[in-house]
Amino acid sequence: MKKLIIGVMGPGENATPSDLETARELGKLIAQQGWVLLTGGRNSGVMDAASIGAKSANGLTIGILPSSDTSNVSDAVDIAIITDMGNARNNINVLSSDVVIACGMGAGTASEIALAIKANKPVILLNCEEKSREFFGNLGGDGGVAIAPTPQAAIQQAKQAIALIRQLSD
Amino acid sequence: MKKLIIGVMGPGENATPSDLETARELGKLIAQQGWVLLTGGRNSGVMDAASIGAKSANGLTIGILPSSDTSNVSDAVDIAIITDMGNARNNINVLSSDVVIACGMGAGTASEIALAIKANKPVILLNCEEKSREFFGNLGGDGGVAIAPTPQAAIQQAKQAIALIRQLSD
Amino acid sequence: MKKLIIGVMGPGENATPSDLETARELGKLIAQQGWVLLTGGRNSGVMDAASIGAKSANGLTIGILPSSDTSNVSDAVDIAIITDMGNARNNINVLSSDVVIACGMGAGTASEIALAIKANKPVILLNCEEKSREFFGNLGGDGGVAIAPTPQAAIQQAKQAIALIRQLSD
Amino acid sequence: MKKLIIGVMGPGENATPSDLETARELGKLIAQQGWVLLTGGRNSGVMDAASIGAKSANGLTIGILPSSDTSNVSDAVDIAIITDMGNARNNINVLSSDVVIACGMGAGTASEIALAIKANKPVILLNCEEKSREFFGNLGGDGGVAIAPTPQAAIQQAKQAIALIRQLSD
Repeated sequence: MKKLIIGVMGPGENATPSDLETARELGKLIAQQGWVLLTGGRNSGVMDAASIGAKSANGLTIGILPSSDTSNVSDAVDIAIITDMGNARNNINVLSSDVVIACGMGAGTASEIALAIKANKPVILLNCEEKSREFFGNLGGDGGVAIAPTPQAAIQQAKQAIALIRQLSD
Repeated sequence: MKKLIIGVMGPGENATPSDLETARELGKLIAQQGWVLLTGGRNSGVMDAASIGAKSANGLTIGILPSSDTSNVSDAVDIAIITDMGNARNNINVLSSDVVIACGMGAGTASEIALAIKANKPVILLNCEEKSREFFGNLGGDGGVAIAPTPQAAIQQAKQAIALIRQLSD
Repeated sequence: MKKLIIGVMGPGENATPSDLETARELGKLIAQQGWVLLTGGRNSGVMDAASIGAKSANGLTIGILPSSDTSNVSDAVDIAIITDMGNARNNINVLSSDVVIACGMGAGTASEIALAIKANKPVILLNCEEKSREFFGNLGGDGGVAIAPTPQAAIQQAKQAIALIRQLSD
Repeated sequence: MKKLIIGVMGPGENATPSDLETARELGKLIAQQGWVLLTGGRNSGVMDAASIGAKSANGLTIGILPSSDTSNVSDAVDIAIITDMGNARNNINVLSSDVVIACGMGAGTASEIALAIKANKPVILLNCEEKSREFFGNLGGDGGVAIAPTPQAAIQQAKQAIALIRQLSD
C-alpha cells in the first residue's frame, strides 16, 4: 500500500548553514514518523542534508534527479529516480509528495512552492524571510500555505494536513 | 534560422480584465516587432489574449499545451505543441523563450517566473503587485528581473535584453 | 488557427545517405503542401536533412530539442522548442504531429513510432527494412501503420490520413 | 546508498494470462534477490502483477505513474511517483532502472525497450514473439538485448548485467 511521502524542497549549492541544520533535523523527524522522505536527490544543500537526517533515523529516502549523470546523487538517497528532465522534474517532486515542506529559499524552491500551490498540495514554509512568507501566503490563499517556526512545528502541521487529506478521501 | 521567441506568461481562468487588456496589447506589439509569441496555449486568460493580440498584427503564435485534449487550444494559436505533461510544461515555456514577460500573477505564473530566473532568462514583470515585484526582484538578484509599467515599456526592455544576449553570444 | 504539423522522425548521427536524401525530399514536399514540419531539431541526420528540405521550399520548421544546449540546433529550424528533457521529448514530437513519418530506423526512431502507435497517431514508414515493417505493422494493428515506397507516396498517404482525421472530427 | 532497481515493463489492459503469470513470478524473484521493483505503477496488467509478486516476497515496489489521478495506482505499489506526463514517463522508467525486463509486448512496452536501448541499459525480453525478438535484437546490437526463456533465466541474466555494470564502474 502506498506509503506517505513528505517532500522537502530547498536550495542546493546556495543553502545557508541554518538551512542545512534545519533540513537535517527535519529529515530525521520525518523518518521517525515512519514517513518516506522525497527530495531533489542531489548531493548538495537541503536535498542532501534532509536525506542524511532521514538515514540517521533509518528512514527511506527517495531522490528525484534532474539529470542522467548519476555521479551527483546524494549518498543518502536509497531510491534514485532519474528523470533527465532538468527542473521540469520539480513538478514531479511536488505531485509525488503528500505534503511539501520548503526549507530555505531560492529560484528552484520558489518554483516548487508555486507548483505545489497550483496542485493544491499542503505547503509548509520553514526558514524563510518575511517577504517570501507574505508572497506565498497570498498566492496560496486561505489555508494553502502554513508557516512553521521549527522542524518540530512543521511535523505537527504535516500531521494535521495528512489527517485532513485522509478525512477528505474517506 | 532560429526566430526570436518572446514568452508571455500569466493567469488563465483567474486573469483580471486588466491582465487581459494588457496581454492583448503586448501580443500585438510583440508581433509588430516581428517576434514569435509563445504562451501556454489554452483558450483562456492571458495565453488566449496575448495570442489574439499577436494574430491581430499577423504574428506567429506558439502554444505549449499542458494536456493532450486539443479542445481547449486557443483559436489564436498557430503552432500547438502538445506536451501532455501538465505544469511540468512550464519549464519548456521558459526555456524556449528568449525573453519571458509575466502579465498578472498566479501560482502557475509564479512557477514560470521562478523557473525563468533559475534558467538565467531575462524576466519582465507587468501588471503585478508590489509584493510580487519585491519577492521576484530579490529572487532574481541584480539585473535578473525588470519591472515594466506598460506593454510599450516591456517591449523596450525586451529589446535591451535581446541586444545583450546577442552581444554575449558574439 | 492551428496549422497542420507533419512530424518527420529518423536517426541522427547514424542516418544512412539514403535516409538523408529521402528526408530532404520529404521535407521539401511537406513544405510544398503548406504543412509545418516538426522534427527533433538537432543539426544531425534526418532531423537536419528534413528541415533543410523544408526550408528549400520556404516551409516553416519546428524543432523539439532534447537539451538546453542550443549549439546543436539545426540551422534550418525556425522555431526551437527547448525541452531539456532528453528522449522523453520523443513523446512531445509525436503528440504534436498530426501525422508521423519515420524515415530510417534506430532506437530513438523506434521509440517514436511506438509512442505514436500508443497515441493513435497515423504512422507512415519510409526507408525501413522488412523486419521493422513487420514488427510495427503488427504492433499498429489494422490501418495503424502504412508503408511508403517513396516520399511522394508518403505525402499521398499523409493526405489520406489528414482527410480521415478531419472527417472524424466533423 | 542507492539500491539496485529492476524495471519490469509490459502491457496494461492487453496483457495475456501468460504475461500476468510470468510477471507475478518475476516480481517475486526480484524481491527475493533484495532488489527494488520499478513498474509503470497502474493497477493493471504486468505492472500490477509484478508488483503483487514482489509484495508476496516482502519486496519494495516503486510505481512511476503517468497521470495525477491516484485512483488507478496499484495497491501493491509502495512508492507512487506521480509524473502527470503520460507516456513521456516511459523514459523515466528505463533511466531509473539498472536493468530493464520486458514481459509481453505492446506499443508502450516497445517504446520502453527502444528507450532503454537508446540509454544503453541492459534489456531482457521475456514472453515475446520471434518477430519482436528479431527486431529488438537487431536494434540493440551486440549484447544489448538478451532473451530469457523463463523468469528464473531473466534473474540470472540480470545478475550478470549487474556484475558487468559494477565491474565497469569500478
